[in-house]
Amino acid sequence: MDDSTATYAQSGVDTDGEERGMQKLGAWVTKSFGLRPDLGRPVLPLGHYANVIALGDTLGLALSTDGVGTKIFIAEMMDRYDTIGIDCVAMNVNDLICIGAEPLAMLDYVAVQVPHERLLDELGKGLYRACELAHITVPGGEVAQVREMIKGTRDGWSFDLVGAAVGIVDLNRIITGKACKPGDVMIGIASTGIHSNGYTLARKVFFDQAGLDVHSHVPELGRRLGDELLEPTGIYVREAVSMLQSGLPVAGLVHVTSDGMTNLLRLEAEVGFDIECMPEPQPIFGLLQDKGGITAAEMHEVFNMGVGFCVVADAASESEILEHARADGKEAWVLGHVVRGPREVHLRSAGLVGRGNHFETV
Amino acid sequence: MDDSTATYAQSGVDTDGEERGMQKLGAWVTKSFGLRPDLGRPVLPLGHYANVIALGDTLGLALSTDGVGTKIFIAEMMDRYDTIGIDCVAMNVNDLICIGAEPLAMLDYVAVQVPHERLLDELGKGLYRACELAHITVPGGEVAQVREMIKGTRDGWSFDLVGAAVGIVDLNRIITGKACKPGDVMIGIASTGIHSNGYTLARKVFFDQAGLDVHSHVPELGRRLGDELLEPTGIYVREAVSMLQSGLPVAGLVHVTSDGMTNLLRLEAEVGFDIECMPEPQPIFGLLQDKGGITAAEMHEVFNMGVGFCVVADAASESEILEHARADGKEAWVLGHVVRGPREVHLRSAGLVGRGNHFETV
Repeated sequence: MDDSTATYAQSGVDTDGEERGMQKLGAWVTKSFGLRPDLGRPVLPLGHYANVIALGDTLGLALSTDGVGTKIFIAEMMDRYDTIGIDCVAMNVNDLICIGAEPLAMLDYVAVQVPHERLLDELGKGLYRACELAHITVPGGEVAQVREMIKGTRDGWSFDLVGAAVGIVDLNRIITGKACKPGDVMIGIASTGIHSNGYTLARKVFFDQAGLDVHSHVPELGRRLGDELLEPTGIYVREAVSMLQSGLPVAGLVHVTSDGMTNLLRLEAEVGFDIECMPEPQPIFGLLQDKGGITAAEMHEVFNMGVGFCVVADAASESEILEHARADGKEAWVLGHVVRGPREVHLRSAGLVGRGNHFETV
Repeated sequence: MDDSTATYAQSGVDTDGEERGMQKLGAWVTKSFGLRPDLGRPVLPLGHYANVIALGDTLGLALSTDGVGTKIFIAEMMDRYDTIGIDCVAMNVNDLICIGAEPLAMLDYVAVQVPHERLLDELGKGLYRACELAHITVPGGEVAQVREMIKGTRDGWSFDLVGAAVGIVDLNRIITGKACKPGDVMIGIASTGIHSNGYTLARKVFFDQAGLDVHSHVPELGRRLGDELLEPTGIYVREAVSMLQSGLPVAGLVHVTSDGMTNLLRLEAEVGFDIECMPEPQPIFGLLQDKGGITAAEMHEVFNMGVGFCVVADAASESEILEHARADGKEAWVLGHVVRGPREVHLRSAGLVGRGNHFETV
C-alpha cells in the first residue's frame, strides 16, 4: 500500500485481530445463553446491534453497551466536556432502536484519573441533554477513580465514558432485518459529521499528517477543527420510535457506525443493497480524504459519509417513512433499494462494492 | 498523620474529591429521572446499590454497573486473565441483589490495548464461570480497542473490564433497608479475601513498601501473593435469592465493598448497627495491616475484613437466615444486632465507630 495513504489498520485499530479475539469471547458469551432457558433467555444471536432477553410471554428487554472511544481525546484537547455525554447516549440508544426497541434508560460508567468537579459536572450536563433528546433517564452509574489505568491527552483530566442502555420491545416485533425483500426502499437520515467512529484515523490525518490542532481555524469547515470534531453524534430515537409506533412496515434499521454502509449487511436477510445515490457528505469528510490521501473504499469503510442512520421499508410507505425521518428536523433521502442477493452493498456513486465489512472498487 | 502509615487517600484514591464530583454528576442524573414519569420511571434515589425502573404496575427492572478497578493489574502481573471476569460479574450482581432483585443478565465492556485472542478467551472463561454461579447470561457486550486510552502494568495486555447488570424485582418488594428495626439480627457471610476493593492501597503496601511481587511466596498465605490477590470475589446470588424466594423477613442486604462495614449505613432506616463480634479475618488482612502500618480504623474503612455480604432480618428468623446463608457452602455468622439510632456502626471488637463512610476509634 502506498506509504502516503493512511489506513485504519495502520493508524492502530486492528479490526481483523479484534475479530479473532471477539470470536473467542463470543463463544463463551454464547455458551452463557443456555444458562437461562426461560426467564431472561437471550433471544438473538450475537452480532445484532442489541440483544433482547425475555421478561415474559411478549415483553422483551433490549440491552446494548458502547463507549465513546477516542473522541474523548478531542474533548480533552478542547478542555470541554459538556457534549461527550451526548455521544455516549447516542451510541447506545441508536443501537437499541435498531432491533425495534424503545429506549428507557442508560447507566453510565466514568473512569477518571481525577474526579474534577468541572469534568463530572460537564459530563453530566451532556448526559442530561441527551436524555432529553432520547427520552430516557440515567437511573444510576459509577465513577471509578483509576488514575493508573486511564491515559489520554490531558494528564489529570483523562477519562473513559461508557454506557449500557435498556429498552423494551415486543418479542413478536423484534426487527432483525429478515423481513427485508427486493424492492424495499432504503432511506438515509443525515449524520451530524463523523459521529463517534473513526477518530483514530481522523486524529492521525489531522494532527500527525496535516499538522493541525483542535484550535486551528479551518476555512472549509467555517470553524475550529476541534468544534467540528466534537460535534455530538445524532440521536435517531424520535424518528425510529415514531415510525414503529405508527405501525409502518419497517423491515430494517441500521445505525451507521464503524464499517460505514457495510452495516447494512448486519440485517439478516439474504439480499443485496443497491445504493443509487449518497447525499453530498459534510465538508469534514472531503477534508479528511484529501489531507490523508485516503481511498474512497476506506473512507466508506470507516466513516458514515453523511448518513447516520438507515431505514429499510416496503416501498409503498416511502413517503410516510420520509416524513417520519424528517419530523425531528434532520435531512433524509431515498438512498436506493434492496435487491436480490448476494449479500453485498453496491455504492454506485463511488464505484464500490461492500462485502463483510470491507469495500472494494468494482 | 504518621508518615510510616499508608492511607487510602495517600495511596491515590481521593474518596472525598470523588464525593464532590459525584454530587455534580448526581444532580444531572437525578434531574433526568423526571423525563420518564411513567414507563421507565426510576423508583429509588441515587445512593442505593442499584436503581429500579418501572416496567409495569408491579414489574421493576433493577440496574447496576461496576468495574473491577486495579485488581486488573494483578491479573496483568500474573499474566492470568481467567478469573477477573468472575470479579466483574460478582461486583455487579452482588449490588443488584441488595435491593431485592433476581439478577438475569450482564453486559460486559472490555477496553483493550490489543485484542489478544488469549486475553479475550480467558476473560470470557471467567465471565462464563461467574454466569453459572450467579445464574445469569451475558447477552452481549463490547470490545473497544483503545490502546491510547488504557494503561496498566503489562504493555499491550492492559485492559479495563466493566459490567452492567439487570434483574427483576417486584416494585412492592424492593429492599431499601427501611424495614430494619432495633432488635433485628445482622448476619455476615464470608468473603473470599479482599474481593475487588482496596487494591490501590494493597498494591502500595505489598509492592512499594514491602518490596514483594506477585510471585513472592508468602508463608502466612501458603501461596504466592498474586494467587491470593487474584482470588475471585464471592458471589452471593444463590444465598440472597433463596432467602427472598422463601419469603423470609429480610429487612436489609449489604454488599460489603469499599467503605467496609459503613456500607450498613446505606440502609435507609434511622437505626444503628451494633457489631458485637467479627469473624477472624483471613491472613491477608493482618498481613496488609502489619506491612503497611495501617490503623484498624482504616483497615475497616477500606476492606471487607472477612465479611463480604450482610443480611439484616427479624431476629425470629435467625436460624433460617443462617441456613440459607450457608446453603452454598460459605461460612456465615451472627455479627450483631440493629439498635436504636443514631445512624452509626459500632465495631465493638475493634473499638471503632463508623459514621458516613469513616471509622474512628471510640
